[in-house]
Amino acid sequence: MSRAESAGTAPDPRALSLNTATVRVRWSLAQMIDGCARHGVRGVSPWRDKLAELGVAEAARRIRAAGLTVTGLCRGGLFPAADAAGRRAALDDNRRAIDDAAALGAQCLVLVVGGLPAGSRDLAGARAQVRDGIAALLEHARDAGVPLAIEPLHPMYAADRACVNTLAQALDLCDALDPGARGVHPRQGVAGADWAPAAALGVAVDVYHVWWDPQLPAQIARAGASRLHAFHVCDWLVPTRDLLEDRGMMGDGVIDIAAIRGRVEAAGYRGLHECEIFSSRDWWQRDPDEVLEVMKARHRAHC
Amino acid sequence: MSRAESAGTAPDPRALSLNTATVRVRWSLAQMIDGCARHGVRGVSPWRDKLAELGVAEAARRIRAAGLTVTGLCRGGLFPAADAAGRRAALDDNRRAIDDAAALGAQCLVLVVGGLPAGSRDLAGARAQVRDGIAALLEHARDAGVPLAIEPLHPMYAADRACVNTLAQALDLCDALDPGARGVHPRQGVAGADWAPAAALGVAVDVYHVWWDPQLPAQIARAGASRLHAFHVCDWLVPTRDLLEDRGMMGDGVIDIAAIRGRVEAAGYRGLHECEIFSSRDWWQRDPDEVLEVMKARHRAHC
Repeated sequence: MSRAESAGTAPDPRALSLNTATVRVRWSLAQMIDGCARHGVRGVSPWRDKLAELGVAEAARRIRAAGLTVTGLCRGGLFPAADAAGRRAALDDNRRAIDDAAALGAQCLVLVVGGLPAGSRDLAGARAQVRDGIAALLEHARDAGVPLAIEPLHPMYAADRACVNTLAQALDLCDALDPGARGVHPRQGVAGADWAPAAALGVAVDVYHVWWDPQLPAQIARAGASRLHAFHVCDWLVPTRDLLEDRGMMGDGVIDIAAIRGRVEAAGYRGLHECEIFSSRDWWQRDPDEVLEVMKARHRAHC
Repeated sequence: MSRAESAGTAPDPRALSLNTATVRVRWSLAQMIDGCARHGVRGVSPWRDKLAELGVAEAARRIRAAGLTVTGLCRGGLFPAADAAGRRAALDDNRRAIDDAAALGAQCLVLVVGGLPAGSRDLAGARAQVRDGIAALLEHARDAGVPLAIEPLHPMYAADRACVNTLAQALDLCDALDPGARGVHPRQGVAGADWAPAAALGVAVDVYHVWWDPQLPAQIARAGASRLHAFHVCDWLVPTRDLLEDRGMMGDGVIDIAAIRGRVEAAGYRGLHECEIFSSRDWWQRDPDEVLEVMKARHRAHC
């Protein structure tokens, strides 16, 4: 089934954004910025390891010069820890991430919330630590004008990466901690269109993590424009040979990406479509210029 | 954290049942039946490949002679198919599985419902095929006195094994297709205690598949005694190196099994605790007598 069958309209090609994870092995951030400009990709979402290479100020300068939208900074979060010192260190690091996101003009800071502390089986406790951690950051994020985007991760990462595993769970956190969904951040969408101001707390919807969820349509509608901070695309391969680094390029797997894109747009999302592919055996081995060419074509055909 | 901290009471050691998957590589079904008797394990749940080796009548005779409870037959399901002929073939095979389960006196037929047909991205369509398939089987199952147990599988299997991925989704199917939860099957629980008659349609709760679910406590309570047809134990390893065959022995991973056991018992479950471990690198390589000894000790300590 092609995109046209499931969503009706092609995506705006100007909506594509490059998450640096997709070409992390062979390109520096400076090369990625140049590559996006060269390929007509209009957004970028850096991971902090790449940001550290170049320095935040220099990265911000180059990204602005290239005219790129920063669709997010990856990543804050990782709240649960075995002791109070660990939790404090996590909050300090998150505040630095918020400041970096502000310096970059990022549309959000993506939160990968963290899993169980080492040796723990207390999932409810870890989830409570996540709630408390986000609550402790919100004022700093509001002051900095940086919306926080909770990214629910696939349940296969519940133990070691993120114990927020469904969109419903993420939105329950948003509603509990930021009940009014007050807009704190003006946003520019595809083709420069304004869309709803971003709530201080919202979600990043990555098709890889949520495609299986029977509640997905209802929860995307529930999120609405003010809480939809980011939309990430890639694909689920069959078979998947590794839990972490075997994501597929759009069109190579089983996710009906276009249908999900249609739902986030119907809910009011006007932001970019960020391509984030962890693929140690395939895409990370290829020439990044080839990866960007394929990414653009697959975006048109399958998103 | 030990079992005692999270659930308070030790499990009844008579509640342990062996799923044949746990020792599938090195033992035949006949050896498993003898092994259960030798180790004082009072239940068994055969997979159909093992059943075919021995023949249903002979297997039933030996299981009865050994005094074992058949906690389930694995497995029916696999409903979605690319065409009507495929769907009919699946239903025919499911009817044979129901008849086999009846011959064994199995407490349920476990349904692993199937994923996307080859080449399809239509998850909603696959789920509709599952609903229609179960609906088409219910009368045969009622007539045979075999409760059907929908096993929600972990979302990482949504594409290729089962597109029912949460307990809520499974219970929605139960409520839609078997609204009264009418009991069709008397049951013997731990220590021979009667418990609620099994509804024609219910669920198999495997901790591996559901441990991450934020809705788990509420959905176990919702299921109640009449829909809780089976309870499977093993553990989630960190890291998990393979999506299918890297399950852990109870206590080697991060699942608070005792807490989940406490919840199913609080909901009225009185059945056995079936140990099902897919482990190509570890447990399948060991002497099955050792596996059963460890399984018994871990059941006491961690379930």
